[in-house]
Amino acid sequence: MKVRVSITRKAGLSDPEGVETHRALHDLGYDEVGDVHFGRIITVEVAGKDAAEVQARVEEMCERLLANPVIEDYAVEVLG
Amino acid sequence: MKVRVSITRKAGLSDPEGVETHRALHDLGYDEVGDVHFGRIITVEVAGKDAAEVQARVEEMCERLLANPVIEDYAVEVLG
Repeated sequence: MKVRVSITRKAGLSDPEGVETHRALHDLGYDEVGDVHFGRIITVEVAGKDAAEVQARVEEMCERLLANPVIEDYAVEVLG
Repeated sequence: MKVRVSITRKAGLSDPEGVETHRALHDLGYDEVGDVHFGRIITVEVAGKDAAEVQARVEEMCERLLANPVIEDYAVEVLG
């Protein structure tokens, strides 16, 4: 099964890439741009038949390795 | 409007972070894990009322700044 993990910084934490990109977009004339935030996507192929079980295993991988739960939020979607 | 840009490396290009993460997950006992691929998410707030117009503007931002079209694919979703 294909699983998509989206990892974003927790609200309120600084996002220097986002701030710099916001500035660069304004320099290019995109004045309509407001907040910009960076995050990561990790797609993982997982052998398994039960979507709920695969979801639980990948959430465990997030806690143990993929994300930093202290400063990041993550969302796991089993795409099938 | 909130817009989500998902940027992934083009198929066939090497993804060293993915390879290392695959190995680390197997070291932790997650033997069910197959291919792992890393990408980026950029969320952008854009002032505008017409979703098609906002989509076109953000695709232009991808070509000019946000993505590297030579080695990356991107998908733009206007979330509303």
